[in-house]
Amino acid sequence: MSRADWLRIPAGLAPVAGGDTTTPAGFHASGVACGMKASGALDIGVLASTRPTTSGMVDTTSALPAAPVVRNRTLERGAIRAAVVNASKANAATGSVGMDDAYAMGRRAAGLLGVPESRVVVCSTGTIGERLDMDLVAPGIDAAVAALSTAGGPDFGTAICTTDRSPKGGAFALGLGRDTVTIGAAAKGAGMISPNMATMLAYITTDAAVAADDLQRITAAAAGASFNRISVDGQMSPSDTLLVMANGEGAPLAGADRDRFAEAIAAVCRWLAIQMVKDGEGADHAVRLLVEGARDDAEAARVARAVGNSPLVKSAVFGRDPNWGRISQAVGQALAGAEGAVHEPRVSVDGVSFDDPGAAAGVLALDEYDLRVELGRGDGTDELWLSDLTHAYVTLNAEYHT
Amino acid sequence: MSRADWLRIPAGLAPVAGGDTTTPAGFHASGVACGMKASGALDIGVLASTRPTTSGMVDTTSALPAAPVVRNRTLERGAIRAAVVNASKANAATGSVGMDDAYAMGRRAAGLLGVPESRVVVCSTGTIGERLDMDLVAPGIDAAVAALSTAGGPDFGTAICTTDRSPKGGAFALGLGRDTVTIGAAAKGAGMISPNMATMLAYITTDAAVAADDLQRITAAAAGASFNRISVDGQMSPSDTLLVMANGEGAPLAGADRDRFAEAIAAVCRWLAIQMVKDGEGADHAVRLLVEGARDDAEAARVARAVGNSPLVKSAVFGRDPNWGRISQAVGQALAGAEGAVHEPRVSVDGVSFDDPGAAAGVLALDEYDLRVELGRGDGTDELWLSDLTHAYVTLNAEYHT
Repeated sequence: MSRADWLRIPAGLAPVAGGDTTTPAGFHASGVACGMKASGALDIGVLASTRPTTSGMVDTTSALPAAPVVRNRTLERGAIRAAVVNASKANAATGSVGMDDAYAMGRRAAGLLGVPESRVVVCSTGTIGERLDMDLVAPGIDAAVAALSTAGGPDFGTAICTTDRSPKGGAFALGLGRDTVTIGAAAKGAGMISPNMATMLAYITTDAAVAADDLQRITAAAAGASFNRISVDGQMSPSDTLLVMANGEGAPLAGADRDRFAEAIAAVCRWLAIQMVKDGEGADHAVRLLVEGARDDAEAARVARAVGNSPLVKSAVFGRDPNWGRISQAVGQALAGAEGAVHEPRVSVDGVSFDDPGAAAGVLALDEYDLRVELGRGDGTDELWLSDLTHAYVTLNAEYHT
Repeated sequence: MSRADWLRIPAGLAPVAGGDTTTPAGFHASGVACGMKASGALDIGVLASTRPTTSGMVDTTSALPAAPVVRNRTLERGAIRAAVVNASKANAATGSVGMDDAYAMGRRAAGLLGVPESRVVVCSTGTIGERLDMDLVAPGIDAAVAALSTAGGPDFGTAICTTDRSPKGGAFALGLGRDTVTIGAAAKGAGMISPNMATMLAYITTDAAVAADDLQRITAAAAGASFNRISVDGQMSPSDTLLVMANGEGAPLAGADRDRFAEAIAAVCRWLAIQMVKDGEGADHAVRLLVEGARDDAEAARVARAVGNSPLVKSAVFGRDPNWGRISQAVGQALAGAEGAVHEPRVSVDGVSFDDPGAAAGVLALDEYDLRVELGRGDGTDELWLSDLTHAYVTLNAEYHT
């Protein structure tokens, strides 16, 4: 787990030890090795509900989405009941044959699962621009569907990984009055994106009953407060997908219960997103950047992106260097052309001002800390988690593929 | 020199062997060591015309410009006759004492030179957020003014450097009908910016007679076609400054001669800018990125920035990896929300398609090559020079200041 003030786990939401995507009743999962990963590691996973579902889904805003994303946009997005995922090739920039492959994956999984093709999501993550090995993928799907069970959560979490140092996920119980609902999660992503091995993917399951419209709204809001606020390298993937499936029966959540469920989903997404930053490609540090005093929230977000994506700031984080001049530089760049007076930002880490470089250096030696940038221009704020720029990042991204 | 198709030296413009900023008649230069650079290297330079001048100047668009830039904006910008420059501290983010120091530098140099303070530019480059050591700078200015001579060009070029691997500059002769005018140049900058040791600075001298209004227009156009089209790390400096001084007597250039002079200044700026990319912090490769087939030039520029600043593309250039998927990813990100169909880009290097990875890998092993990205959406084009992301960049920016 990470710092409590980062996670902001709402009251009534408690981790379930050893939990995963199959902890909510009626969800089965699996992961198998079809041979696409040269290491022989698990590389195809299936996650499915045994009961009808509602669902919420958000995906990449890239103008060149991967073939599975294009396909998924044609589905019954409020009633997704299963996901089939392969790792090692992203099936992005693969043209019409890539589209054929994405449809074939969904059709095959749907047939075996006995659910409509229009309710099965397909995701592919890995190298962009290379066609899938369908002679490996097709039997892999068969094996993965055959392996589905309530014990398959860990294998599913492992099968979807690429450059991740470890699988990310778990489960939580949320008390709602006299009832308890369960939430399971699995995610992959060594950053906002590493298009090399492309993508952020996240899957959330729950045995709550949630109306599809509500679930879509809850999903979009949760993504905006979590996955859209992290930066490993500032790059957007053609494959990013967040899918939330709810298979509860009975009356859908409403009123305060629905609001608390929404808070819980947002907290789980934040928890997954921070794990992605901590697992960022080559990352040594995870930093929460708090931008305050902007003219409005949009300006704060612009400044947060400029600071959080700056290779100079990221190098300074890696070097544990209290070089606030680099933050001033990024602020000056972000606010070029902005109206009103722009002041030098006040910069602190965990409450220690950079005016005291010795004390600040002590905080910079921590694995995790808050970096606060105060602009003094108004009330706008933003929050963003970032990793650092390290030799390991350069090595990983220069040497892969050669 | 660099590839002729990159430089596009216009007819009639020829290098002057061994030339520098003092090659045009009536310009003196110097560089001395005042002790700010711990190595004892030259760190204060002065460049001055013995005759009245016209001038053009452009500087950073940062919302937090350095103190000297703020001061310089109050000057007689069409009649700048001298520049005093220190390296090692940028006098940026230094508040009102920094402003006092910038004014003191200009006043001292102007007094010694016997020219109005309003005609002396001050530039400081180096670490952001640290006050100048005025007890070193003041006697340094005295010594630099005393050392001014027609032999001081190389020392000036050296004194303004920070993380540069070598000084950048030279001189050219431009034939205009029966006359020949001379152009000298000196620049520093290990990239678009490295705020660590901050900044792009460039000084151009000429013995041509040019009206001040024309010279400002020519200077701004030249910067737009050169220094604004390079990317080492995508970061903007608070100190970036380009100053062009012309001290010719007689009738100002007009008509076709003026146009040819403008082309020559643009070519010299492009030559300096490409040298900056080749000298980029830690850079192993210099790449000209040509974006074609955008809906308009503005869209092409947006795509060029996204591709050229991408740490994934820059890592692939370092790794000599024909990973065109990363270029597709950056294009998809740049065109998020764009109207009309977005196709996969066609990517080639020096005319060799990435569809032939073996042949492309041969080009990627070169120190310099053209990277062409065709979008197939229209007639918009852009050109940008970029360096790669290397271990040396991370080391330089993580370890400096610690």
